[in-house]
Amino acid sequence: MKSKRIRDYGIIVGELPPGHYNKITDVAGVRVGHCTIDTDQHKTGVTVILPCEQNIFAEKLPAACFVWNGFGKTTGLVQVKELGTLETPIALTNTLNVGLMQDALVEYMVQRCRKDGVVMKSINPVVGECNDSRLNDICHRAVHQEHLFAAIEWAQKDFALGDIGAGKGTICHGLKGGIGSASRLIEIDGKIYTIGLLVQSNHGRMADLTIAGENIGRVIAQQTQTEAAMQQASDKGSIMMIAATDLPVSERQLERILKRASVGLARLGSFVGHGSGEIMIGFSTARRIRYDEQAVCSMEVMPENKIDLAFRAMAECAEEAVLDSMCCADAVTGFEGHHVDCLSDWLERLKK
Amino acid sequence: MKSKRIRDYGIIVGELPPGHYNKITDVAGVRVGHCTIDTDQHKTGVTVILPCEQNIFAEKLPAACFVWNGFGKTTGLVQVKELGTLETPIALTNTLNVGLMQDALVEYMVQRCRKDGVVMKSINPVVGECNDSRLNDICHRAVHQEHLFAAIEWAQKDFALGDIGAGKGTICHGLKGGIGSASRLIEIDGKIYTIGLLVQSNHGRMADLTIAGENIGRVIAQQTQTEAAMQQASDKGSIMMIAATDLPVSERQLERILKRASVGLARLGSFVGHGSGEIMIGFSTARRIRYDEQAVCSMEVMPENKIDLAFRAMAECAEEAVLDSMCCADAVTGFEGHHVDCLSDWLERLKK
Amino acid sequence: MKSKRIRDYGIIVGELPPGHYNKITDVAGVRVGHCTIDTDQHKTGVTVILPCEQNIFAEKLPAACFVWNGFGKTTGLVQVKELGTLETPIALTNTLNVGLMQDALVEYMVQRCRKDGVVMKSINPVVGECNDSRLNDICHRAVHQEHLFAAIEWAQKDFALGDIGAGKGTICHGLKGGIGSASRLIEIDGKIYTIGLLVQSNHGRMADLTIAGENIGRVIAQQTQTEAAMQQASDKGSIMMIAATDLPVSERQLERILKRASVGLARLGSFVGHGSGEIMIGFSTARRIRYDEQAVCSMEVMPENKIDLAFRAMAECAEEAVLDSMCCADAVTGFEGHHVDCLSDWLERLKK
Amino acid sequence: MKSKRIRDYGIIVGELPPGHYNKITDVAGVRVGHCTIDTDQHKTGVTVILPCEQNIFAEKLPAACFVWNGFGKTTGLVQVKELGTLETPIALTNTLNVGLMQDALVEYMVQRCRKDGVVMKSINPVVGECNDSRLNDICHRAVHQEHLFAAIEWAQKDFALGDIGAGKGTICHGLKGGIGSASRLIEIDGKIYTIGLLVQSNHGRMADLTIAGENIGRVIAQQTQTEAAMQQASDKGSIMMIAATDLPVSERQLERILKRASVGLARLGSFVGHGSGEIMIGFSTARRIRYDEQAVCSMEVMPENKIDLAFRAMAECAEEAVLDSMCCADAVTGFEGHHVDCLSDWLERLKK
Repeated sequence: MKSKRIRDYGIIVGELPPGHYNKITDVAGVRVGHCTIDTDQHKTGVTVILPCEQNIFAEKLPAACFVWNGFGKTTGLVQVKELGTLETPIALTNTLNVGLMQDALVEYMVQRCRKDGVVMKSINPVVGECNDSRLNDICHRAVHQEHLFAAIEWAQKDFALGDIGAGKGTICHGLKGGIGSASRLIEIDGKIYTIGLLVQSNHGRMADLTIAGENIGRVIAQQTQTEAAMQQASDKGSIMMIAATDLPVSERQLERILKRASVGLARLGSFVGHGSGEIMIGFSTARRIRYDEQAVCSMEVMPENKIDLAFRAMAECAEEAVLDSMCCADAVTGFEGHHVDCLSDWLERLKK
Repeated sequence: MKSKRIRDYGIIVGELPPGHYNKITDVAGVRVGHCTIDTDQHKTGVTVILPCEQNIFAEKLPAACFVWNGFGKTTGLVQVKELGTLETPIALTNTLNVGLMQDALVEYMVQRCRKDGVVMKSINPVVGECNDSRLNDICHRAVHQEHLFAAIEWAQKDFALGDIGAGKGTICHGLKGGIGSASRLIEIDGKIYTIGLLVQSNHGRMADLTIAGENIGRVIAQQTQTEAAMQQASDKGSIMMIAATDLPVSERQLERILKRASVGLARLGSFVGHGSGEIMIGFSTARRIRYDEQAVCSMEVMPENKIDLAFRAMAECAEEAVLDSMCCADAVTGFEGHHVDCLSDWLERLKK
Repeated sequence: MKSKRIRDYGIIVGELPPGHYNKITDVAGVRVGHCTIDTDQHKTGVTVILPCEQNIFAEKLPAACFVWNGFGKTTGLVQVKELGTLETPIALTNTLNVGLMQDALVEYMVQRCRKDGVVMKSINPVVGECNDSRLNDICHRAVHQEHLFAAIEWAQKDFALGDIGAGKGTICHGLKGGIGSASRLIEIDGKIYTIGLLVQSNHGRMADLTIAGENIGRVIAQQTQTEAAMQQASDKGSIMMIAATDLPVSERQLERILKRASVGLARLGSFVGHGSGEIMIGFSTARRIRYDEQAVCSMEVMPENKIDLAFRAMAECAEEAVLDSMCCADAVTGFEGHHVDCLSDWLERLKK
Repeated sequence: MKSKRIRDYGIIVGELPPGHYNKITDVAGVRVGHCTIDTDQHKTGVTVILPCEQNIFAEKLPAACFVWNGFGKTTGLVQVKELGTLETPIALTNTLNVGLMQDALVEYMVQRCRKDGVVMKSINPVVGECNDSRLNDICHRAVHQEHLFAAIEWAQKDFALGDIGAGKGTICHGLKGGIGSASRLIEIDGKIYTIGLLVQSNHGRMADLTIAGENIGRVIAQQTQTEAAMQQASDKGSIMMIAATDLPVSERQLERILKRASVGLARLGSFVGHGSGEIMIGFSTARRIRYDEQAVCSMEVMPENKIDLAFRAMAECAEEAVLDSMCCADAVTGFEGHHVDCLSDWLERLKK
């Protein structure tokens, strides 16, 4: 990973202020952990978003999802859509490891519920993925239960970005992609709320990459002949986008907010290619839904008339999070010697 | 119309208790009005569901819809789905009159908002329809603004059922259909809530009609040779289902409840034919959403763990409302001399 | 399992003729295999539907899905919906074993593609599930890769029904459920087509069970006090419905056909309870889509005007398949001594 | 209207070649007509897209739609989604005139079918809308049947762009919007296909307007104090996008293509505000579906592996069509003296 973020290059996305870390973890209670597998054969891993401290099966969070392009293997969306709740941490990994990570989340929740004395016989794990097969020997599923447990154990607020965890082997706009994150603060009715986003970026064609209105990808594409750039002649891969907020939203409102993440991608030059699965999942920490609730409950909802603020925040987060996922990633040489350049090197080179 | 309802024949649908009228108007604030056009050329009309006394544009109601079979021309669903609110009365009419009724609802709301001093420059009228072209000269759109205004003016709690209003010309399972309604009371957390349904029935094949588990339609089909029965060899027409409730529900929960209406239809023998548009629209009177709301609001939501009660109520309402729509309808001879028998005559005849 | 099917009791569902086996395997090319885990601790297993002989990743089949009630953990639906293709066999298992079966399907396809010389680095396994935790120690995931491979190896046309494979531990309307199947033949334009369905039944309340219009479940409920019946006071569990056809259909048409499966369930008395995930997945064998196709292709599509035949076939298959899943299941005593009666015993008892 | 298009300013959107007119009418058979109402009280009208010469009810076209943001009153989408066909011309108008235009399309098709000897008793008119209430006295619905009939009569290939027809009163990014259009040619398998788009632009905030990567809207916003710019502080209004193509596509593929239109909007700076209904409707001229078809038909479908070309074409069309809608619009002073500047004046001014 590299520590310079896109803001350190003087590029400010949008007009809203970011939170303290400018990461998804600016939403109170949220933590993120990685476990990376970095060998000659494998550049891959798992990244886990922990939405809260409490047992999330026993006290679920309101959640929503939006499938912009469903070319992907994400699990758990069917139930999130039906019930509007999230009941496990969210794990991101490589495409062919989804099943094992789903099972690992089951095991994690079985153990947690046993410890907490919560009867649990059904659970809906949410796992997202990107295809890192350029740099990773994907058919040999390298990510196991122990890696997910490690990612959860090491989860923190100020987590690392770039080529780490589930982002170790991903490619974005022909350069090294990875894990990115951003946050924005908005004010409604005199109170400050936070919207945060984490992305696993693995999409886009190099020649389309546009930063702050400049089609920098075309310049890089002309100067480079790396195979990753070539392979990325078409917009393959995917992008997973996980959003968190403390806004009091209904599931319907949250889905509307999630949709605006796609705006950020379009501004970076993506036209959401056929092979580029684009999936948004989000949750709100504004209330908890007890798994054994039998009574009518009171909840707060934000006014639809103010939702534009959240839309703008989400679009800005998406644009900045993808840029950070690239900016913080180092160049990587992986499976069968495939090499992918990193954006920061090109930013330095083109500055001169 | 006929005044005997299906319960008067000793047929009790389901196990939950009905409300006072056993109609959608058992939900407080809801009224229904009809205007019928009954000439040699036309057997058609308009039926209006008024969800509340207040200006519904200024104080919207939470709403949802579900399109089981979208072979239909209903307006307003796109916005109901996006925003989760209802902002006009709901009008039902014949298929080719939808545009004029949509415009009439615009005019009604323009006048109402002007009177109430509410600035309104955009409105989303909800209009449903069934195709009554067997008994009605549908291409010559007979229902005009004055009819909608009359239906609204005459709206009441104890409205008539059967071959009236938008149900004047409809055909259900090869017999005369029309407007039906039913309601159910459920208890959650010690409090009684009401679920009501109104249907405009125009679907189903005669031979499939099944009442209380008995395939009565096959018997009728064997004994009759009326052209309507013949024409109904295929399951054409449609059914519109409008639900009201005072349950505190989110839009997601309301949509789940609406879906269960289809269960009632299946029990009567329908398999939701290709041409049988089946559309559910529902609203809750449990809260109001001010059109100029700028603040975070508090709302109540029922526990998902108790939603089965509402599901069962909706399924029972649907089955009974369709039966009542047929039971209360008289035989009709309409456009070009087409004749349609009524269920009550057959029930009497088969009893002997 | 028991060998008497519902037809052997003189109960004929619907009016269309069944195929040779009256099973999903009447569609040419389709085979089904089971692997059952039957111990004191476990009553569970896996059932696999093999849609064709060819490598289905290399030559995909048109597919669709419909989520009637998304309280479920099924994988693969997002991509099926987006791309309209099926590229793996379909596996059914218990709720907490979905991840391991997803991974096992990945491994199966990795090996198959390697053998066939097909480059595969992304695959979308379709796994469905029901919750068998009444009879099975579900938290200890008992179904492993070897069981899926065994089920595939033993797959055949004339597969067993009832308490076997993924149906070993399921409960339907308070009695033993399991794997059921049915098929129907329809004629379009002088040619005979087959529609087949396989269900994993695990839904419904005992008192609601209605067979051929008779509310037999109420009678059984009154005479029994088994705990399963009690636990089934609410409509929990789920039903998975897998459809196959050789009809030339677009994905849109296939989804419309799948929706009609819910009609069959309603006729048996289900109102699709909150906890009763109801998911339909279907594929057509009428054409194949090469994974590396670069050219415009010709395909056939059935006329929408004839689709009612397919709707009726699907509704009939669903009703009969659920009845057969119960009829062919033996009584089972499982985890912690829980016992579930079987329908056939009750049918015999009530006959006297 | 102004005749200079955005290309005449040297701004080329994307990399694909446009068709002859660079309009939706580059798709063979498609024509467009306008009727404008331009009085002190009214700046509004109707624009009609005629998809083909034949009776489109008798020989329907494959169609699809996508609702990006459903804050809108468009009619006909429910059936387009269910059946995948278009059976009337598409009319665009102002928000409160939708009902009358829906009825006018009914009348047009009644007359056309009578003339052609086609029995028609049900029709699904597609009408889209934008809210032009800033410049138009919208509550007094000014567009009548005669205007729609006139628009159809005057329809042509080389139709005018800008402040005309349904675009007479719309506002885009705080400047005058209106009707825009663009087209792109793509090659699949050695054959050239055309994708065309027509937009009615009425969305976006002035300060967000970005042309070719340059945030020109911020500059204009700083230099202007017009009330329209102020009113557009929030992203209100809407955008209707109508696509035509001769590509052989399934409805599923066409919907995927339509979704990519939103990418073009994002690049111009929109984040799809709450009030900005964004709706895409598209049709293919590659085949016709007879209304009385009873036989299995053959159709062609493009390979999914080549669909990226169509995605890119759609994104480029959207960006260019919106720019042309603004570029070709003159400044307008309308209802109650409200004035809106035009983009071309600003482009000239800023050049100096």
